[in-house]
Amino acid sequence: MQSSALFSAVKINPPPARVKALYTANPSTVDDHNHMAASNPKWAQKTITLPPHRRGCHLITPKIVKEIKQDLSEFKCGLAHLFLQHTSASLTINENYDSDVRDDTETFLNKIVPEGRSAPWKHTLEGPDDMPAHIKSSMFGNTLTWEFSSSIPITDGQLNMGTWQGIWLCEHRDAPTARKVVVTLNGI
Amino acid sequence: MQSSALFSAVKINPPPARVKALYTANPSTVDDHNHMAASNPKWAQKTITLPPHRRGCHLITPKIVKEIKQDLSEFKCGLAHLFLQHTSASLTINENYDSDVRDDTETFLNKIVPEGRSAPWKHTLEGPDDMPAHIKSSMFGNTLTWEFSSSIPITDGQLNMGTWQGIWLCEHRDAPTARKVVVTLNGI
Amino acid sequence: MQSSALFSAVKINPPPARVKALYTANPSTVDDHNHMAASNPKWAQKTITLPPHRRGCHLITPKIVKEIKQDLSEFKCGLAHLFLQHTSASLTINENYDSDVRDDTETFLNKIVPEGRSAPWKHTLEGPDDMPAHIKSSMFGNTLTWEFSSSIPITDGQLNMGTWQGIWLCEHRDAPTARKVVVTLNGI
Repeated sequence: MQSSALFSAVKINPPPARVKALYTANPSTVDDHNHMAASNPKWAQKTITLPPHRRGCHLITPKIVKEIKQDLSEFKCGLAHLFLQHTSASLTINENYDSDVRDDTETFLNKIVPEGRSAPWKHTLEGPDDMPAHIKSSMFGNTLTWEFSSSIPITDGQLNMGTWQGIWLCEHRDAPTARKVVVTLNGI
Repeated sequence: MQSSALFSAVKINPPPARVKALYTANPSTVDDHNHMAASNPKWAQKTITLPPHRRGCHLITPKIVKEIKQDLSEFKCGLAHLFLQHTSASLTINENYDSDVRDDTETFLNKIVPEGRSAPWKHTLEGPDDMPAHIKSSMFGNTLTWEFSSSIPITDGQLNMGTWQGIWLCEHRDAPTARKVVVTLNGI
Repeated sequence: MQSSALFSAVKINPPPARVKALYTANPSTVDDHNHMAASNPKWAQKTITLPPHRRGCHLITPKIVKEIKQDLSEFKCGLAHLFLQHTSASLTINENYDSDVRDDTETFLNKIVPEGRSAPWKHTLEGPDDMPAHIKSSMFGNTLTWEFSSSIPITDGQLNMGTWQGIWLCEHRDAPTARKVVVTLNGI
């Protein structure tokens, strides 16, 4: 294995305050004294333990928002990152209104990934639902990242997501267990 | 639901300038005075409205690059993040040369997610293509993140992506509509 | 195409040191003088060339950790981002223990994406395994992002991932080739 450095990484201690708007839509938000103080780079990292959910797709936007709402209010602009610390469940962003969409998605996942005696899996020691769960986890993924900014009101289901977007936890195992999600907020 | 803080988040106002290269490939880029001024953390966030595209996979690298090229030039190193604010279309990075690859991918998606009378979906009120569109959106995802650095020329299709990589918008609905993509640049 | 700026991006040169914990779990890690110096925003970017792997799914956590371990030790909290510069292989996070899980995942991918004479692909010039490889790449994706913090020991397979999570390279081509992964670390 070879490695090559593409770019010199730097540890930065910047000189005193200067603020420049790359996008000039709302210059008044960056050039007053209070906002400048609030514009320092910030990091917040937190683990949220979700209670057990039955197998299927579940809208968890309200639970996530409740946990990060107060901290989000300290940011003007940035990225929120969610990481599910499991390999038999998924996080995805999809439709937030009709629960049939979640049910139909579960139907699709079960249709596309065979389970039971006819399935070709070698990894069966942890039950017939385990190997399919791993596959579904890689299909839908276990990380999410989305933008936020103070110009979008932070309310359930918003977070600068689209009007109809929500955060889903897809539980792929039959036996529900608590699931840990690490949330990282990074912004100014 | 339980929550536990894994790490203390900090709001940082760092002391005066010190620069240290973690990777030493190009130290001259970090130790002169001008570059230090350019090495402060920067954030840029913008919404791009893509015009309606017909159902299928489309290469949109030139459109995205055109919108962010000028701002990218202000960064030396960082991450670009794209977030599609819709649940019936996808963003993915794939082959940028042969349009047959995009057509074959659309063929695959239609083959794997059934549509029409024989499909098992409950969510049908918004048309036969709607529920399949939601599933395809979670399969391919709606976010992209990739690295950029000033050592890679920012030209169409590059952006520190691989030679053959491009950004695709996959439109999963029959009726084309404009699609909003939030772009966030974060770096130094 | 229309563009609108959602938020004014800023170039920041923050005023002298102030540290505030958004999450107060471990305040002692942020309020002593040494840690403050270490809490400046940092970026590191590096390209890792993975040696050729045979077609299938491979656990590459040790290789990645070996390359970034020293640099990670300079961070207290942040995000690690991996970007595979290819469109016929994937990166995913999945089970790190039983190699049968990797084999079964390869079985699934081959089952779901047809290959050979009966396959409906137009893009066949680069071999029968090429078009399936592109599709698999978009299904599993080519980017990974996960959190790290100094409160989690950085050892193989950890990196603030779940106990059973590991980084997989999924090689979708028959002819093994070296693969480039750009790694970016961003944090404090």
